[in-house]
Amino acid sequence: MSPMTAIEIQQRAIQMLQEDADKILKLIEVQLDNLTMPQCPLYEEVLDTQMFGLSREIDFAVRLKLIQEDTGRRILSELERKLSKLNR
Amino acid sequence: MSPMTAIEIQQRAIQMLQEDADKILKLIEVQLDNLTMPQCPLYEEVLDTQMFGLSREIDFAVRLKLIQEDTGRRILSELERKLSKLNR
Repeated sequence: MSPMTAIEIQQRAIQMLQEDADKILKLIEVQLDNLTMPQCPLYEEVLDTQMFGLSREIDFAVRLKLIQEDTGRRILSELERKLSKLNR
Repeated sequence: MSPMTAIEIQQRAIQMLQEDADKILKLIEVQLDNLTMPQCPLYEEVLDTQMFGLSREIDFAVRLKLIQEDTGRRILSELERKLSKLNR
């Protein structure tokens, strides 16, 4: 397999970040299904840790000029929007 | 400025991860200089959070095939080695 071109790396970066965001959403959905009360500290901690991890990946991709800053912001805000819907 | 080539992106990724590792070392050195006792919970929490953030960046770079897995491991273990020296 020939090495990826810069454009392919950039496309793959966006795709991976979106997949990571979707994984967090899935993780939280499963947690909420199994939790009696979503305010339980562990749930908050898992969510904060995962969001912090994703934001560091996005920051790294932006600094490496693989994605635009607003693309990163969109991925995060879209995830936060979906998560807030889950919490209602 | 022409867009980076794939090779330049890979080189820049390694350089940035090393810079991020050095920033953590610097942060901890400053903390230790200002802390009476290095076992203080805040110090541990800052360290854990920063190490988790760096490991997520490294994992992202490995998955994106920007760096080899053992390069990532080397950056982390070298930082841990330097940190453990600080703690003595």
